[in-house]
Amino acid sequence: MNYCSHCGASVSFEVPSGDDRPRYLCHHCGTVHYQNPRIVAGTIPVHEGKVLLCRRAIEPRHGYWTLPAGYMENGETTEQAAWRETWEEAQADVKVGHLYTLIDLPHINQVYMIFRAEAGPEFAAGPESLEVALFDEQDIPWDHLAFPTIVRTLEHFFEDRPTGKFPLHTSTMDKRDRKGMF
Amino acid sequence: MNYCSHCGASVSFEVPSGDDRPRYLCHHCGTVHYQNPRIVAGTIPVHEGKVLLCRRAIEPRHGYWTLPAGYMENGETTEQAAWRETWEEAQADVKVGHLYTLIDLPHINQVYMIFRAEAGPEFAAGPESLEVALFDEQDIPWDHLAFPTIVRTLEHFFEDRPTGKFPLHTSTMDKRDRKGMF
Ligand SMILES: [Zn+2]
Ligand SMILES: [Zn+2]
Repeated sequence: MNYCSHCGASVSFEVPSGDDRPRYLCHHCGTVHYQNPRIVAGTIPVHEGKVLLCRRAIEPRHGYWTLPAGYMENGETTEQAAWRETWEEAQADVKVGHLYTLIDLPHINQVYMIFRAEAGPEFAAGPESLEVALFDEQDIPWDHLAFPTIVRTLEHFFEDRPTGKFPLHTSTMDKRDRKGMF
Repeated sequence: MNYCSHCGASVSFEVPSGDDRPRYLCHHCGTVHYQNPRIVAGTIPVHEGKVLLCRRAIEPRHGYWTLPAGYMENGETTEQAAWRETWEEAQADVKVGHLYTLIDLPHINQVYMIFRAEAGPEFAAGPESLEVALFDEQDIPWDHLAFPTIVRTLEHFFEDRPTGKFPLHTSTMDKRDRKGMF
């Protein structure tokens, strides 16, 4: 951020009086420009025991497999965001269930929220996917998954499945969790 | 948003090519300025069966009672944000537990995340609170609560408490849920 989005003057990066951390501050119009974490909403779509994965047609991690997920938009709910991303990336009209993983990534200012979802037999690659496919547990491409959040969500799912219970899993990740992936 | 925060040129509000909704777009440098929902993180602090509430010293809803909660900041986890807000507003060093209510407010682009928390006997009004106090269930100032998210979270809590189980409650609110409050 270089310029004030309200008045167009140059901003400075400093601790406003009465605050405890630096912000982008406009001395011309007085606006403080707060920056906040973004929610990445998505699903783990399951059809007849198989998990639907998308192979990414975009960077980062072009060519790697992921669960459908993306930035939540203004004006929608977390569940609607999860449904929309699944529709956009996998053209699958899923029935969204409970929140399943909540993963904080404070080093990149993201909060992942992945919901369980029931998929039908109809799906197709959306514009951001190279291909979309259903995977049995033994066929999951563990070495070609796009993000550690996806690895963790799938690990929880296959651990929970024999128990028949899928409680919310909350956890935190940092840079080190990416090690060996990219 | 009037000006591009990257280059300072005027922005337009239009649907970028390949997109499906209007964004603030800079034709000078090409930056698309996305806007996303913000997380409001907080706690329901309990000490010896009583709930800790704060009376707001700031607008909106100056003078009304609330659970400690506020905007999550970059660089922190949801749980850290909930702890920090509790510290700032109630000067209480709580032990943060599980996520308890997740409430989507799409009309104001917020997602509330309230965590259960154990408080001790030490607390005090922070700079954004007029006073802070512990309330038994029968003394909760239902008619003087600041926000419908707080009403709903307290209702869940007192419904769940006799069962001894506090599952995650997810729900959505819109403008109508504010009716009769403000
Ligand atoms: Zn300004
Ligand atoms: Zn620009």
